[in-house]
Amino acid sequence: MKRLALTVIALLLAAPAQADTLVDNVNGITLDKDGKVVRFTGMVIGTDGKVKQLLDRKDKRPERPDFKEDGKGRTLIPGMIDAHGHLMGLGLSLMLLDLSDTRSLAEAQAAIKKYADENPELPWIIGRGWNQEKWGLGGFPTAADLDAVVPDRPVWLERVDGHAGWANSAAMTAAKITAATKAPEGGRIEMVDGKPAGVFVDAAVALIDSAKPKPLARDLDRAFLAAQQQLLAQGITAIADMGTTIQEWQAYRRAGDKHQLAIRILSYGGDIDNMALIAGPGPTPWLYDDKLRMVGVKLYLDGALGSRGAWLKAPYSDAPGQKGLPLLTPAQLRNKMVRASMDKFQVAIHAIGDAANAEALDAITDLTADLPGERRWRIEHAQIVDPADIPRFAKLGVIASMQPIHQPSDRLMAEARLGAERLKGAYAWRSMENAGVRLAFGSDVPVESANPFPGIAAAISRTDAQGQPFGGWHPEEAVSRETALDGFTRSAAYAAFAEDRLGTLMPGMRADFLIVDTDLLLASPEDIRKMVPLETWIGGYRYYKKGG
Amino acid sequence: MKRLALTVIALLLAAPAQADTLVDNVNGITLDKDGKVVRFTGMVIGTDGKVKQLLDRKDKRPERPDFKEDGKGRTLIPGMIDAHGHLMGLGLSLMLLDLSDTRSLAEAQAAIKKYADENPELPWIIGRGWNQEKWGLGGFPTAADLDAVVPDRPVWLERVDGHAGWANSAAMTAAKITAATKAPEGGRIEMVDGKPAGVFVDAAVALIDSAKPKPLARDLDRAFLAAQQQLLAQGITAIADMGTTIQEWQAYRRAGDKHQLAIRILSYGGDIDNMALIAGPGPTPWLYDDKLRMVGVKLYLDGALGSRGAWLKAPYSDAPGQKGLPLLTPAQLRNKMVRASMDKFQVAIHAIGDAANAEALDAITDLTADLPGERRWRIEHAQIVDPADIPRFAKLGVIASMQPIHQPSDRLMAEARLGAERLKGAYAWRSMENAGVRLAFGSDVPVESANPFPGIAAAISRTDAQGQPFGGWHPEEAVSRETALDGFTRSAAYAAFAEDRLGTLMPGMRADFLIVDTDLLLASPEDIRKMVPLETWIGGYRYYKKGG
Repeated sequence: MKRLALTVIALLLAAPAQADTLVDNVNGITLDKDGKVVRFTGMVIGTDGKVKQLLDRKDKRPERPDFKEDGKGRTLIPGMIDAHGHLMGLGLSLMLLDLSDTRSLAEAQAAIKKYADENPELPWIIGRGWNQEKWGLGGFPTAADLDAVVPDRPVWLERVDGHAGWANSAAMTAAKITAATKAPEGGRIEMVDGKPAGVFVDAAVALIDSAKPKPLARDLDRAFLAAQQQLLAQGITAIADMGTTIQEWQAYRRAGDKHQLAIRILSYGGDIDNMALIAGPGPTPWLYDDKLRMVGVKLYLDGALGSRGAWLKAPYSDAPGQKGLPLLTPAQLRNKMVRASMDKFQVAIHAIGDAANAEALDAITDLTADLPGERRWRIEHAQIVDPADIPRFAKLGVIASMQPIHQPSDRLMAEARLGAERLKGAYAWRSMENAGVRLAFGSDVPVESANPFPGIAAAISRTDAQGQPFGGWHPEEAVSRETALDGFTRSAAYAAFAEDRLGTLMPGMRADFLIVDTDLLLASPEDIRKMVPLETWIGGYRYYKKGG
Repeated sequence: MKRLALTVIALLLAAPAQADTLVDNVNGITLDKDGKVVRFTGMVIGTDGKVKQLLDRKDKRPERPDFKEDGKGRTLIPGMIDAHGHLMGLGLSLMLLDLSDTRSLAEAQAAIKKYADENPELPWIIGRGWNQEKWGLGGFPTAADLDAVVPDRPVWLERVDGHAGWANSAAMTAAKITAATKAPEGGRIEMVDGKPAGVFVDAAVALIDSAKPKPLARDLDRAFLAAQQQLLAQGITAIADMGTTIQEWQAYRRAGDKHQLAIRILSYGGDIDNMALIAGPGPTPWLYDDKLRMVGVKLYLDGALGSRGAWLKAPYSDAPGQKGLPLLTPAQLRNKMVRASMDKFQVAIHAIGDAANAEALDAITDLTADLPGERRWRIEHAQIVDPADIPRFAKLGVIASMQPIHQPSDRLMAEARLGAERLKGAYAWRSMENAGVRLAFGSDVPVESANPFPGIAAAISRTDAQGQPFGGWHPEEAVSRETALDGFTRSAAYAAFAEDRLGTLMPGMRADFLIVDTDLLLASPEDIRKMVPLETWIGGYRYYKKGG
């Protein structure tokens, strides 16, 4: 675990309280409740932390505000809402060995050995972020590769997409894995010479995961604060936490009880059991001044594309016998959806492959008549969708909760997995928008960085951090700057039943905003990608100041 | 479950808010921080819900209080703190069908049918309180008697003494009971014509009990409100909840989040796992304006006297081969105590038998040197203590958390189990007090009623509800009225690290008090036993008014 002194922070920086605040001389941008761009040069924030008034250049300023902030002509935009992330996953990942920057197996091995040597007290070496594609390995790494650098303790490293894990021999021994161990349904144990090779895919990840030491409550508390601090610095003012466990919820509540909650958490219980244990007979009230609420439940219908766990209608182009697998039977999926919906919980279904998306839509179709009211069904990722299914999202009022940054990250892998024809419905933001589907944007942090600006750049350009491919990958699926902003603000709030308080800066809404040095609606994708918040304000309090 | 309209109450009755309140013209009684009696005739409560000032007859009253209550000369005493109860156990017991008033099988059948018809949503009909002796049946009732009124759903009814249960055919089917089912050791299945007749005795009760559905979150929410309402009416303003589970805690938090918490809950986690999951790395802060806090952990070291589960130094007088059993090994007990104490949780150990009490004291002795600081170890019940061990409580600073009402309830049973000699250390309140032990008093609700006044009457008289035995049972162990009051107020607060805010009515303390029509320090045991609160105030709000 990393040294933590840097992550446990004093949260309130020169924050006004119980007083009207005028933020003046800004290039202010927000969407209104209908999604139209509104520009302003000043904003008055009330003592309740809500926007009181937006001011035009010619509007008269309050004569004696209690606090006055000079924006110095910089741009002010709404706080970014990440519609799909894993808050504690981020926090714990910040505590772990991070291999995401390694460019070869040898580099990874060196990093692992260094970390193990530096942390002799850790019972297990736990890390994440490896990607054999990036290393040009041609196949998965093995336990032997790890045994060569850490023979004495279990080593367990999660792949960058979270859908596979890499163990050394000590970890397999600790988990009682032998040549006879069967992979559970929906999982795969990589084998070499009739023995487990070290990599465990999808549902088989649990075989090792269940043996590793669980983080203690104090570890979760530190992880949460580390995650929060990173998100504040990235301009995230609210995040939909997709799959909250009771342990994680208790950490969020502890932070709330100790007045340490800065960001807003829109929580979706990790399956029905966590949902019911955490929230009880229905969604929780907004807690801690709108900082925490359990809204619904997150269900997993399939796995991921990289590990070929995504459930496809036709076989993988690069693995002809495989189509992936549903993780729930039709009856299981529908039962869970009904149980949550009867108690007014919102349902968010993870569906990546086109078969999973079709099945999620089928289930929603089956249940809609018996579950009247505004359900706002969400499909999380909606990554590979049969173009024929896209209009069904709109017809059923299903929110497509997508992560633009996945597109540049997945591009080459997706081409290999899917082939040219199926790419027509892949990361198909513009097709969704044109069909009338509500788009909520997120990051899937820690699978990707939560930094929303590379996501917005990808959304409008279909290019990666190097601006590749030139002109964009399937550029017909790029969306406008306004749509990208909407996806990370207004629609992300709507997607969590929070549009009555979050997502825009119109009067009455919570004063959650960023000061940045770039006009998001005018800048190039390159400039947007490099954007960094100078200040992050939530509920009228400044929680982050760059360099401050 | 009972209709709940009566139990889900509007909590605040004409409660002042944000204003000073003068409660005047009262016969006021409190203990001060040192336990001395203080009398007063008026009390000023501040806007913060704390006592601002106690007024003597000659003291000048505030000229214009925002609210004024005329006590009409009635007695005002501190709110009662139950130092040992099971809040949700009480609530769930209040949800059950109560057959204790039925005078015949036919009357019981009618009540069962009515309840089943009125509660079609209940998957099982669960009740208690039947007594075939009272019905003049001559033998146990049968499953057929129940099938005649409820054929479609399981019915499961506990006998008045808790030592037998009565099932219908659907309940036996749900529990997979057949003619071949064997009764477990210590249990009996009533048979008729070679088939189970419907009644299950002692250990066989578990055969059906284990099949009944667990309460849902909404059941717990309703149960909590019902329990709270009953406690308010009994004059309980705070209760130590001994063995809170995560499910129960979530219900308390939901009540807090919805502003439905009236009483104060001093929670002790049900063993280490619940403690750590609920509170995390240490006791929680005081939540909801001092209404809820997890203080520590409850550990079970032995069972109860009635079922001969209490762990004795020498065999039971009425079962010569048996001494009862410890439920934890010495290592287990000490490990749990260390784990809790390292994280600053208070430890409360259930110990009823003299061997269990000695072992708890031994464990505390073993650990004290390595765990400096004020631990306030608690022994719960401390019911049968070797007189030689009593001074050890005082020497180690161990709080004896005792329930006076157990003494009259257990009298005949205790005489049978223990014999005359061992009774010298049984329910030995005065011996504890004389040795310098801090006594905290409670009820063990729902094992006994939470009503503290029969408890106080027993504490000062060693007599039961009929005033028997004349002159009191081992009357040398009776305590003074002042000590009894202290046990249910000041020392009960101290026992939960709450003496800085609860337990007395001295200025600065929370204004938790009762209006009663009897002077507790002057009345006879008979009058005290019949005392009923006229009003119950918590934090300066009136939450209960008799008949109001």
